[in-house]
Amino acid sequence: MKKGIIFSGMRPTGKLHLGHLSVLENWVKLQKEYECFYGIVDWHALTTGFEDTDNIKENIKEMALDWLSVGLDPEESAIFVQSHVKEHGELFLLLGMTTPLSWLERVPTYKEQIHQFGQVGKDISTYGFLGYPVLMAADILVYRATSVPVGEDQLPHLELTREIARRFNHMFQTEVMSEPQAILAKVKLLPGIDNRKMSKSYGNDIALNASTEEINDKVSQMVTDPARIRKTDLGHPEVCTVHTYHTFYNEAEVKEIGAECRTGKIGCVACKKRLAQKLDLFIAPIREKRAQLAAQPNILDQILEEGANKAREKASHTLEAVREAMKI
Amino acid sequence: MKKGIIFSGMRPTGKLHLGHLSVLENWVKLQKEYECFYGIVDWHALTTGFEDTDNIKENIKEMALDWLSVGLDPEESAIFVQSHVKEHGELFLLLGMTTPLSWLERVPTYKEQIHQFGQVGKDISTYGFLGYPVLMAADILVYRATSVPVGEDQLPHLELTREIARRFNHMFQTEVMSEPQAILAKVKLLPGIDNRKMSKSYGNDIALNASTEEINDKVSQMVTDPARIRKTDLGHPEVCTVHTYHTFYNEAEVKEIGAECRTGKIGCVACKKRLAQKLDLFIAPIREKRAQLAAQPNILDQILEEGANKAREKASHTLEAVREAMKI
Repeated sequence: MKKGIIFSGMRPTGKLHLGHLSVLENWVKLQKEYECFYGIVDWHALTTGFEDTDNIKENIKEMALDWLSVGLDPEESAIFVQSHVKEHGELFLLLGMTTPLSWLERVPTYKEQIHQFGQVGKDISTYGFLGYPVLMAADILVYRATSVPVGEDQLPHLELTREIARRFNHMFQTEVMSEPQAILAKVKLLPGIDNRKMSKSYGNDIALNASTEEINDKVSQMVTDPARIRKTDLGHPEVCTVHTYHTFYNEAEVKEIGAECRTGKIGCVACKKRLAQKLDLFIAPIREKRAQLAAQPNILDQILEEGANKAREKASHTLEAVREAMKI
Repeated sequence: MKKGIIFSGMRPTGKLHLGHLSVLENWVKLQKEYECFYGIVDWHALTTGFEDTDNIKENIKEMALDWLSVGLDPEESAIFVQSHVKEHGELFLLLGMTTPLSWLERVPTYKEQIHQFGQVGKDISTYGFLGYPVLMAADILVYRATSVPVGEDQLPHLELTREIARRFNHMFQTEVMSEPQAILAKVKLLPGIDNRKMSKSYGNDIALNASTEEINDKVSQMVTDPARIRKTDLGHPEVCTVHTYHTFYNEAEVKEIGAECRTGKIGCVACKKRLAQKLDLFIAPIREKRAQLAAQPNILDQILEEGANKAREKASHTLEAVREAMKI
C-alpha cells in the first residue's frame, strides 16, 4: 500500500547532466513509497519554444534514456510523454474555464520568463505561454496527485495549482480535485566545472553518461583555488570546485583530501585524478545501462507506451469524475 | 464529389425556435453541396456559463432533436457533440501556443461579451473566456473546413481564424491549415410575436415543435397595427407582426390578405386564424418527426455517436498532419 500519488515532470531539454541528478535520485527514492507518474512534458516545451521544435523528438528519447539509466523503474512508476496522454489537454481546457485571467497575470515567473525567453521582436506572450500554469495544474490534478516534489522556487506554482483546484471544487460543489502538497527536497546544488550553475548552455556540465575521456577532460578543466599556484602553496578547499565534487562523489576520502590540500601535501593534478576516478566509477553503471537501452530502441518505445497506458487509465478516471461534477 | 468542407456549430442553449430556422435551413441546403460537420459546441457553453451547467446535457439533447427534425441528415453530415471529439481540445491547446495574446485582447466581441455576460462581482474574465476565439478556430481548422456559413457579425471571428491559420502555417513552414472562406447567408430575420428580436428569454418565441394550441396561443398574442382598433379601421400591414409572419409562412396569400387588411375587409382575429393554420401546417411535420425521434432516445444517442466517429476520423488525420508539421 503506497502512501500517496506523485506527479512530476521535466521539459524535454535533451541529455541530462550531473546537476539534474539530485532531483532524479529523489524521484527514484519516492517510487517505493508513492504511486508515481513521471512525465516528459513536451507540450510545455511549446509554451516558450514553439518556433524551434526540430529536436523535440530526439530530446524526449535522450531524456527518457537518462531517466531509466539512473533508476526510474517502469515496473514501479508510469514513465511517459505528456502529449501521449490527451487527458492533460482536456483538463487544461476545462480548468481554463474557471481560472481567472488575473491569477495568471500575477504569477511571479510570468514576467521573469518574458525576461528570460523574450527577445526583441519576438512575441513571447502567446495564449499558451500565459496558460502554462493552468497546463501545469492539469498535469498534477489529472492524477489526483497528493504530493509533488518541488524546489522552493516552484512553490508559487504549486500554490496556484491548489487555488485552481479549490476554485474548481467550490464552483461545482465537488471534491474531485485533490490539493497536492509539496515535498520539499533538500537538494545540495552541484555546481558546474567553472563553479557557476551547471548548464549545458554554459558548457560547464558533465553529462550523465559522460565517457571516461569526457570525465577526465571536464575534471581537468575544473576551477580550483585561485590562490594556489604551486603544489606547495597551502590550499583552500572551501573555494575549490574539485573539493565540492569530492564532497558529492568521494565522501569517504573528502576529509583526508581536504586536509592534504590545506597542508600542501596533495597537488591539484593528483586531487583531480582521484576525483575523476571516483566520478568514473559512479557514472559507469549509468553509462552502461544507458548504452544497453539505447541499443534497443523498441524497448524504450514500449516502456513509454506502457507508461502512457498506465497514466491514461488513471487520468481517464479523473476526467470521468470531472465531467460528472461539471454535469457535462 | 462535394465542393468543399463546412464546419458550423451552436452552443447548446436548448430547444430552438422559429427564429433559428433560417440558419438551419441554410445548413440543410449546404449538406448536398458540401461535406458538413455540424457540432453542438458544449465546451463553448463553459466559456461564459461555467457556473451553471445543470442543463447542458438536456440542452444538447433538445438541440440535436431540433436539428434532426428540420432536416439535418446524419447520413449526409456529421452531427455531433464537440466534447466527444477530443481533437478539438488538442488543437485548441496547440494553436494557443502560436496565438499572440494581443490578438485575443483586440477581438471586438471580447468587450461586448464582458458587457453582455458580466455582472457585478462575477469574474467573467477567465482564461477560457479569453481563449474562445482560439477554440472556435480549432473547431473549424480541425476539419480543414474550406467554408463556414456565418452572419455578418461573425466575420471578425472568421478573420481571426484565418490569421491563426496563416501564422501557424508560416511558423512551421506548412500548409496544413486551410484558410476557411465565409458563406454569407442572406437571412430574413423573423421577429418575435411582440416584434422585437425573437428570444426565449423575452418569452416572444414560437418553439420549433410548438403544439397546435401553443401556436394558436402565441399567434393570438401577436402585436398588430396599433392604429387599428375596430375591424372596419383601415390597416397598415407594414407595421403588423402578423403580416410579417404571413410573408414567411403564407406566401401564396400574403398579397391578398394585405389588401383586405388595408381596405378593412379582414379583421385581425380572422387574419391571425389564417396564419395560425398555415403555421401549424408548416410546423406539423417538424413536430411529428421530433416526437418520433424523442420516443427513441437510443437512436439519438447512436446518431450522435456515429457523428462523433465520423468527425473524429477527419479530425485525427488533421492532428497527425499538425503534429508532423510541428515535429512533435
